[in-house]
Amino acid sequence: MRRRALALAIVLLCTSATAAAAPTHISDQALAKAAELRAQALADNTGWQVVESLTTEIGPRMAGSEADARAVEWAKAKFKALGFDKVWTEPVTFPKWERRSEHASVIGAHPQPLTITALGGSPAGTVEAEVVRFDGLDALKAAPEGSLAGKIAYVDFTMTRKRDGADYGIGGTVRSRGPSEAIRKGAIGYIMRSAGTDSHRMPHTGITRFDEGLTPVPAAALSGPDADQLNRLVARGPTRIRISLDCGWDGSYTSQNVIGEITGRSLPKEVVVIGGHLDSWDLGTGAIDDGAGVGITMAAGHLIGQLKQAPKRTIRVIAFANEEQGLHGGKAYAAARVAAGEIVQQHIAAESDFGAGRIYAFNTGSGNPAESREATRQIGEALAPLGIEYRANEGGPGPDVGPLAAKGGAWAWLAQDGTDYFDLHHTPDDTLDKIDPKALAQNVAAYTVFAYLAAESDGSFGSEAKDVVPPRE
Amino acid sequence: MRRRALALAIVLLCTSATAAAAPTHISDQALAKAAELRAQALADNTGWQVVESLTTEIGPRMAGSEADARAVEWAKAKFKALGFDKVWTEPVTFPKWERRSEHASVIGAHPQPLTITALGGSPAGTVEAEVVRFDGLDALKAAPEGSLAGKIAYVDFTMTRKRDGADYGIGGTVRSRGPSEAIRKGAIGYIMRSAGTDSHRMPHTGITRFDEGLTPVPAAALSGPDADQLNRLVARGPTRIRISLDCGWDGSYTSQNVIGEITGRSLPKEVVVIGGHLDSWDLGTGAIDDGAGVGITMAAGHLIGQLKQAPKRTIRVIAFANEEQGLHGGKAYAAARVAAGEIVQQHIAAESDFGAGRIYAFNTGSGNPAESREATRQIGEALAPLGIEYRANEGGPGPDVGPLAAKGGAWAWLAQDGTDYFDLHHTPDDTLDKIDPKALAQNVAAYTVFAYLAAESDGSFGSEAKDVVPPRE
Repeated sequence: MRRRALALAIVLLCTSATAAAAPTHISDQALAKAAELRAQALADNTGWQVVESLTTEIGPRMAGSEADARAVEWAKAKFKALGFDKVWTEPVTFPKWERRSEHASVIGAHPQPLTITALGGSPAGTVEAEVVRFDGLDALKAAPEGSLAGKIAYVDFTMTRKRDGADYGIGGTVRSRGPSEAIRKGAIGYIMRSAGTDSHRMPHTGITRFDEGLTPVPAAALSGPDADQLNRLVARGPTRIRISLDCGWDGSYTSQNVIGEITGRSLPKEVVVIGGHLDSWDLGTGAIDDGAGVGITMAAGHLIGQLKQAPKRTIRVIAFANEEQGLHGGKAYAAARVAAGEIVQQHIAAESDFGAGRIYAFNTGSGNPAESREATRQIGEALAPLGIEYRANEGGPGPDVGPLAAKGGAWAWLAQDGTDYFDLHHTPDDTLDKIDPKALAQNVAAYTVFAYLAAESDGSFGSEAKDVVPPRE
Repeated sequence: MRRRALALAIVLLCTSATAAAAPTHISDQALAKAAELRAQALADNTGWQVVESLTTEIGPRMAGSEADARAVEWAKAKFKALGFDKVWTEPVTFPKWERRSEHASVIGAHPQPLTITALGGSPAGTVEAEVVRFDGLDALKAAPEGSLAGKIAYVDFTMTRKRDGADYGIGGTVRSRGPSEAIRKGAIGYIMRSAGTDSHRMPHTGITRFDEGLTPVPAAALSGPDADQLNRLVARGPTRIRISLDCGWDGSYTSQNVIGEITGRSLPKEVVVIGGHLDSWDLGTGAIDDGAGVGITMAAGHLIGQLKQAPKRTIRVIAFANEEQGLHGGKAYAAARVAAGEIVQQHIAAESDFGAGRIYAFNTGSGNPAESREATRQIGEALAPLGIEYRANEGGPGPDVGPLAAKGGAWAWLAQDGTDYFDLHHTPDDTLDKIDPKALAQNVAAYTVFAYLAAESDGSFGSEAKDVVPPRE
């Protein structure tokens, strides 16, 4: 801790010097306008209407599905209806995975069904074998080579509710890394307690992947109560289960990032990027993941677009394609900016993709954070009446702007309260009724204030092209 | 209200006179023993262990299923293991209904799946038609004759959480009466918002029936969020859905009421009946409905059975067969008592079948309630330390002892807090984790105190054979 504090002091010293040389700041006039926008956004229900429309009219919209294409048309039409100046799409190609059916049951003396869902990326297959339970991924990794031959590995890690959703770091890894580790030990199937925090009979899906050189095996998640039940059965003695999945990869699909812009008045080629992802998993209607993000950022762009005078820079709202199966939309967007030499023009970027809970913290970052310290502080002050705290040295980019940040783009962090997020995430229960309209409006207000002020700021948030190697042919 | 108060006053006047003539009361010695039992039960986990065993080892156990037979064997073995003096079964025959698969979806411009479950008793069938929504059963009844020709009727009544579950009176009727009313108006299918109080993506099943002379149509329940979604779609314009159910009646099945007794020391032929029902719906593991009732009453009988001196009368614990599809176990038990001329020997009876919430009120009743007033008051006093209030003139018999009460048997009412009961009732979410072990122990304590003191009381609770006509051949 001491070493870290010292390092921080040095950083602050350096940044003060830099800030004096090239202060990034925001005019009083812009700050006054932002205060008006903040009040207006809190009283506006555009964000809610957008999420209602998307989740109702399109419903579930898994990447590559028939509904994916409908969602793209919906987003184009919605941007236009909301008065965006320019609306276009950019192609995003990815492998297509389909879920057709999934069943599991305990067999033997205590036969009964188990509620499961296939992990995204799982192959089809029916396996029947004894379950070997592990407390976590480390325990599975520690199992002797070959010890799971002919068995089904079961990793039983229980996530705890936290405001920042920190346990998903573990639960998500159990999902992404577990199957490959199980295969290395000889397992013929993989199951896990869902990466979730609820106690309902709804398993949480999500993408997994198999390391190269391994032969994939059926992989699925149990609901929390089913995991509890399996534990009680395993405690009684050897327990055999049958898993039967019909799902798998089937060719490739080209979807679209759908983009709407409010053109800037003096620096139109410099863009403040905000967005959410348009795709959802197939089990729910994708209200909190991520209809909310689409609604919040479309509404913020719309409110800014209603001003008599547009901000200096362009507000670019992106409904990203296929976030769920590997940030495909975010990667395509970053790659296109690199190819066009537009990284520096990405003034700052933020994605809303952590539900619809109230935002409680804010920060920005980049390879050169000193540039933006003053403007970030000013935006933080403008967000404070919304109950949002400026937290220097915290945060990071949202999923789909991560690839842009990795190429040198500056990012903003608007941290949402995710206490309940993993109750619903990737389950059938991700539906509109789970969104609190007032919390959603607070999000819209925060994104409106942030995007407007970032577009009005002098100087840079630190975006600079980095690690950009021309692609080899 | 005035008229009712007057009638009550007359009743009280009459009963005072009768009570003086034949007081039913309980000795100080028995009351002291009950206080010991109460404390012991609160510290005992037998009730929990029984529910854990039933829900884990048997799991879902729909009447007539393979698991029904396993549950009967389980109950016999459990009674024996818990030290009951006598264990036997009595046959219960009923028609057998099976659920095989169920799907629904919106078709047209906004295609998407709907989460439904077939109502028990529904026939198989696939129907595709426009939905006509009604706020409640009265609105459906008011529809013009023939107005639903070729349509699917949709009744959208929303239950509210209440401690006594009062709204189930309406929601349950929407389920039981709705399909017949819809058919009378020409409907080719029937759907309803689930008779439940949760907002999860889990529909509530439950039995329905079709009036004689009508041709049954597919009938199903939507989860709450799916009903909300359908309402939003219907508000946008005509909405077509497809329902596809594979389910139906298939011959008859004979299950068993499983009965265990602790033999009374001086009046062994007079029985205090307590019990729950052994069957469950197939979607969950039947923890609150009604593993809890079985666990509570088996544990109460067990605790009384551990006493050095048995109570005067016999404690009879019954795990009733097939409550869910029409009180078949309760009807068979009553019919057998009538046939054997044993109604008066049914000293008093109570079923626990409203979950595992704490008991908050108590009363007894019969055709001649005056007989029991003093003993009921004394039992109420013994229950008071458990937070239970004696409420004269309230309550009624539990479902499976209703048929016995109808034949003149006295009943006791131990009212459970059902605030959350209809969140879980008849859904996949009816699982062990939903039971609070401390609340369950409070139930066990209440049943133990009640059953022991009722078995020790002098005089009668008012059981007398009535309306008993010898069956015609």
